[in-house]
Amino acid sequence: MNAPQHASLIGQRIPKMDAPEKVAGKTRYIQDLNLPGQLYGLILRTERVHARIVSIDTSAAKALPGVRAVLTAADVPIHPIGVNKDNPPLKGDKVRCERDEVAAVAADSLEIAQAAIKLIKVEYEDLPPIFDPRDSIKDGAPVIHAAKPDNVAMAFDYAHGDVERGEAESDVVVEDEFTLHRVTHCCMGVSGVIADFEPVSGNLTLYSNTQVPFLHKREFAEVLGMDPSRIRIIQPPIGGGFGSKLDIYPFEPIAVYLAKATRRPVKLIFTREEEFIASPTRQPAIIRLRSGAKKDGTLTFRTVDVLLDNGGYTSWGATIPFVMMQTFSSLYRVPHCRYHTKAVYTNNPFAGSFRGYGNLQATFAIEQQMDKMADALGIEPYEFRLKNAQNAGEVTGQGMHFKTCGFQDCLETAAGRSGFVEKRKALGAAKGLSGVRRGVGMASMLHVGGGAKIYPSDGCGTILKLDDFGHVTIMTGASEIGQGSETVLAQLVCEELGVPMSAVTVVNNDTDITPWDVGVHASRTTFIAGNSAIGAARKAKDKILAAAATVSNMKAEEMDLKGGNIVRASDGEKVMPLAKMLRQLHFSDKAELVMTTNYYEPPSVHQDKGFKGDVSAAYAWATQVVEVEVDTDTGIVKLLKVWAAHDVGRVLNEMGIEGQIEGGIIMGQGYALCEDMPVVEGHLVNPAFRDYKLITAPEIPEMDISFIETMDGEGPQGAKGVGEAPSICMAAAVANAIENATGVRIASLPFTPERVYSALKGRPL
Amino acid sequence: MNAPQHASLIGQRIPKMDAPEKVAGKTRYIQDLNLPGQLYGLILRTERVHARIVSIDTSAAKALPGVRAVLTAADVPIHPIGVNKDNPPLKGDKVRCERDEVAAVAADSLEIAQAAIKLIKVEYEDLPPIFDPRDSIKDGAPVIHAAKPDNVAMAFDYAHGDVERGEAESDVVVEDEFTLHRVTHCCMGVSGVIADFEPVSGNLTLYSNTQVPFLHKREFAEVLGMDPSRIRIIQPPIGGGFGSKLDIYPFEPIAVYLAKATRRPVKLIFTREEEFIASPTRQPAIIRLRSGAKKDGTLTFRTVDVLLDNGGYTSWGATIPFVMMQTFSSLYRVPHCRYHTKAVYTNNPFAGSFRGYGNLQATFAIEQQMDKMADALGIEPYEFRLKNAQNAGEVTGQGMHFKTCGFQDCLETAAGRSGFVEKRKALGAAKGLSGVRRGVGMASMLHVGGGAKIYPSDGCGTILKLDDFGHVTIMTGASEIGQGSETVLAQLVCEELGVPMSAVTVVNNDTDITPWDVGVHASRTTFIAGNSAIGAARKAKDKILAAAATVSNMKAEEMDLKGGNIVRASDGEKVMPLAKMLRQLHFSDKAELVMTTNYYEPPSVHQDKGFKGDVSAAYAWATQVVEVEVDTDTGIVKLLKVWAAHDVGRVLNEMGIEGQIEGGIIMGQGYALCEDMPVVEGHLVNPAFRDYKLITAPEIPEMDISFIETMDGEGPQGAKGVGEAPSICMAAAVANAIENATGVRIASLPFTPERVYSALKGRPL
Repeated sequence: MNAPQHASLIGQRIPKMDAPEKVAGKTRYIQDLNLPGQLYGLILRTERVHARIVSIDTSAAKALPGVRAVLTAADVPIHPIGVNKDNPPLKGDKVRCERDEVAAVAADSLEIAQAAIKLIKVEYEDLPPIFDPRDSIKDGAPVIHAAKPDNVAMAFDYAHGDVERGEAESDVVVEDEFTLHRVTHCCMGVSGVIADFEPVSGNLTLYSNTQVPFLHKREFAEVLGMDPSRIRIIQPPIGGGFGSKLDIYPFEPIAVYLAKATRRPVKLIFTREEEFIASPTRQPAIIRLRSGAKKDGTLTFRTVDVLLDNGGYTSWGATIPFVMMQTFSSLYRVPHCRYHTKAVYTNNPFAGSFRGYGNLQATFAIEQQMDKMADALGIEPYEFRLKNAQNAGEVTGQGMHFKTCGFQDCLETAAGRSGFVEKRKALGAAKGLSGVRRGVGMASMLHVGGGAKIYPSDGCGTILKLDDFGHVTIMTGASEIGQGSETVLAQLVCEELGVPMSAVTVVNNDTDITPWDVGVHASRTTFIAGNSAIGAARKAKDKILAAAATVSNMKAEEMDLKGGNIVRASDGEKVMPLAKMLRQLHFSDKAELVMTTNYYEPPSVHQDKGFKGDVSAAYAWATQVVEVEVDTDTGIVKLLKVWAAHDVGRVLNEMGIEGQIEGGIIMGQGYALCEDMPVVEGHLVNPAFRDYKLITAPEIPEMDISFIETMDGEGPQGAKGVGEAPSICMAAAVANAIENATGVRIASLPFTPERVYSALKGRPL
Repeated sequence: MNAPQHASLIGQRIPKMDAPEKVAGKTRYIQDLNLPGQLYGLILRTERVHARIVSIDTSAAKALPGVRAVLTAADVPIHPIGVNKDNPPLKGDKVRCERDEVAAVAADSLEIAQAAIKLIKVEYEDLPPIFDPRDSIKDGAPVIHAAKPDNVAMAFDYAHGDVERGEAESDVVVEDEFTLHRVTHCCMGVSGVIADFEPVSGNLTLYSNTQVPFLHKREFAEVLGMDPSRIRIIQPPIGGGFGSKLDIYPFEPIAVYLAKATRRPVKLIFTREEEFIASPTRQPAIIRLRSGAKKDGTLTFRTVDVLLDNGGYTSWGATIPFVMMQTFSSLYRVPHCRYHTKAVYTNNPFAGSFRGYGNLQATFAIEQQMDKMADALGIEPYEFRLKNAQNAGEVTGQGMHFKTCGFQDCLETAAGRSGFVEKRKALGAAKGLSGVRRGVGMASMLHVGGGAKIYPSDGCGTILKLDDFGHVTIMTGASEIGQGSETVLAQLVCEELGVPMSAVTVVNNDTDITPWDVGVHASRTTFIAGNSAIGAARKAKDKILAAAATVSNMKAEEMDLKGGNIVRASDGEKVMPLAKMLRQLHFSDKAELVMTTNYYEPPSVHQDKGFKGDVSAAYAWATQVVEVEVDTDTGIVKLLKVWAAHDVGRVLNEMGIEGQIEGGIIMGQGYALCEDMPVVEGHLVNPAFRDYKLITAPEIPEMDISFIETMDGEGPQGAKGVGEAPSICMAAAVANAIENATGVRIASLPFTPERVYSALKGRPL
């Protein structure tokens, strides 16, 4: 009779907790925050992309009434930021790309700041620029950073097995070069920060959209030369992240410098145009891939050479090869693998981390070549994949241990539900270069699904507090950037404590309140923060049931928490209301509140010097099949339907995971078909939504989403992380579908009408 | 060499942590808070003080553009509030005092709300009023609340011993009637609230100045008929409390009703005039006191009859007799005591809790009569007090157990430092009714100093979190209302963890984050919340030293935390920096963060049905001597100097406790000399600072403050609560000083020029 109350929350469709506030227009983003006495910060960016700064004249700007500070590199400490520490927030000697920050203003109003910026005069002396990364490594190339005379920002090699032996064993060898373009996150909430120093103490509070508040504390401390313990980061609700807010960028220290100079809070928010020009992009890449296989379809070897356009400075984009490598080495069983990567400076904008983190690029190359090899071997591509697909229990050449692995299930499910083999055969038989053609394409992916041990800790802390009425507060280090983390954490705690979702508040946006977490990246939040929250909840449950044992005739282990009550575990019979027990515990002689703390560190390991090791506690898998229509007269590619089969470990919140997968598919679709950032002589030509083409509602394809539940032993309730997975396969699957429709394989993205039309006409762009 | 780093923080002069923000004008009080879509609430109060409401016409107000809701009692549920549940937030049937809320408006702006209020037409039918509480209990008196036809809001009796026997043993018996007036808190921050319902969930967030957020949750839930777990109370920085924010008052549910009706946040802030008219006052009282003593100066008995003007409704003012009783029964050793109290309804404004909570009134009576009895016995009043003063170890007739007691030390110190005995003798010898006369007066007090077990729990919870850099966050249930609680809690934690004050953030203003606390009252915060914080810090220390033991060659108990380091306990030799240890703990295989929780419940007990029991874990004592100058031509009494000796257990923050005592003395001075709220026919005649006379800087007397450190065994580092103590003796001491100067004893407050002049002329007001 109490059955509905006792139903598990796991797998239910649970709306996001932050949705009502957002839909009601009540959410106050950083744009809506204003501090007393606040000034408005604005940045003057360079007009040139590679030039020496001869002089900066700020006198007229400083003289403008209402201007409180005008800063140039001469006014601030030299603390370059970014992955290579090559990016001074304000540029003093030279400029290296369109984004470069030359001066900054803090003024009483945005209008005054805008006027002041126009009054700053900068004299430049142009230097020879580099726009193509292949030019950066040519002899005699202009040097972009004096400290790196070879223009190489980052390079490394990886290998397992013996590729020469692999090649000798091969019956078929294919080699291709793939060119990946630049796209950007398009977060609805543009970048912004408010920097506020406390009087007297000098402590700094940053209101920030960062995805990594705890890492940011340390980074800001380094930049500012202050004790990290004196920095507090508060995250107002964040209008999307996708990795764009994973690094520290010049505007942030600039806002802090302005606040320091003026002793006033300074708010610095990008315009949309600035967001396009000056926020990180997905990493463009040139991938040369060579693979071999035996006649029976067994993969033999792979060599990979990756060249990255690092742009003017180094952010996380330069590090995507670490993730790409996993796909090359371990998506399929490859006994021999060699991998070389190089990120080189150019005078282009630079890339950051972006959902999928190199895996879209790697998968684009791998999964096209898998089709190509299958064709060369005369094997059905689906069968070829299935033959080489990893299985549960395997340890790859790179040391990844797949304790659970739904890859083959994903392949079978996506192929089965889409009728892939038959459809591909039928459409392929009708392929051609005239009229409107249809094709199907398949791609699969492997991605970390249980965190990624990159930092000294990959953990997350939780503090749990129950009030006298059964209300639960979860203080978690895990940030909510729109991905639904607070909802799934609440759900996992409610499941343990047998309370409804309405009983929970999640506190997750203030480093002074919440315990440490490494940040939102690597699809880790549900897995890591979820396990942390479950641990805290189980400690609370133990405390409650132990107390219940003292007032009932049952042992703690004979009881459970369900439907807001303490119940008999065997039959769900109510023992007493949870809230009543909490009050008895509190209002007794030995008064006690139920408060617990927990820190979860996944059982993953750091990679060794050879980049080998089981870096994630679990791995996610997916296969996506797409069906497209190619208008050969216009080059327009229409995505008709996507069949997506994802090994998600276990579905926790069906609505949430569907949203993640749908959103990811659409992001992958945009990457494949229309999003692009043409940079001409270092300048972005389309910094606006008018010219930057995002997927909009009418273009969203029909979707058929299947969940493969492998019930991961380490995952929270069996779940794996899935935040990045859904966008990874799309471009590769679309490429394969275009080939199926037209017989033409296109190795460069995006598949805009112009590029497709040119390719079909035999004149690839 | 490291000695300065290792110095204890206890007893240091530590500035308040919130002072810099306040001084810099950065503190954002509730007045400064605005929510998106917020409306402005305003209350229409009655024009009459006792009348039937015949009709209310809100049609014109409702028709005004920008008006979003107009509510009367007819529109809201009937849920009377207050201690007797006799006060409906909106009055429907009748009005009973000047404050009565008849209608309320929510509008787009305050100006529109003001215009709307003027458009509401109310028809009244006057009823016969009562203004003197002595009239309330006369036969045939008009009935104010139908449910209480005898007009008695609250009455009770207490006794210990056998007063008849005591009287029989007495050589001297004196009897007096004392009349105490009405004053108000004059918080710089006026009352206000913002009520905000979440869309969909309907959860309520109250931005409130309350001193009792956790009790408020339950109270609002009752009023609103909702689950208390769905109410979140956030306290913006509070501009003073003193007890005025201890009860729920009609404006608060009204704001909630308006928010509910409009589905918009509603902000309702008092004007200063409204704050005078409609916020609680100190409880006026008429005290008839009869006491006896033997020739040798031993007190024999006491009978007390207290009549309280309860006003139109019942708030905490009606309950002050519980505290008054302690002074009558237990300040001195009194073997026989009988006590009767009655609070009766009138058509006057009503009183709430106010720093000292009845003890100013009781002490005024007791300590004047002690002088009078001493004179009658021919004993020096100081000697008479000393003879009857309580001592450590004693248990009083009411069951209070004085585990530590600095009363006799207080008497000796205040008398010694002021030269009281000689001065009193000399000035008394010169006493007279002409010219300017000087006098000294002494009074002492007893007050709870270790909480007061009134609610089911008198405890407080703490959550502690240390970050990787040694920064400490204290999440405490204890509210900061300007009294400096966050500073002393930070100090106590720093003392345990050996870190500087700058290492601490205190989080104390959000019921969804902080653990339960019963609220700011009964001078309990330093004692209760302090012990709770110390407990949490000691758990953290244990964890840290246990970890240090695993990486050093010392046992945990051989180490200590000092100066930001782990040190060898024996000689302070540095073992390793605390922050380094925290990072080692965090970034190890068995990753752990230092987070602890603690709940402290004092070892006090509830009073039994006879009002007996040891309700506080410690008791505070004080003796104050004042010197005054009386201008017999004008009646002007000038307070020249105060010698205050306080048993504070132990001085924690010398600057903080000095501030508390200085502020309390000035508040007592205002009560004694100038603050007054004349209510004529139910109407307050001076609702403004122009006419309500507060003590200002030039009138502040010289002060000589001594701390008696009795090192209470249960107190945090030995301290006792002292928040209320310093204002308690002042009026009594001034009365005794006036007598010493002029020979005239005045039994009514305040000692305004008019009252003193009239008394000196033999025509007491």
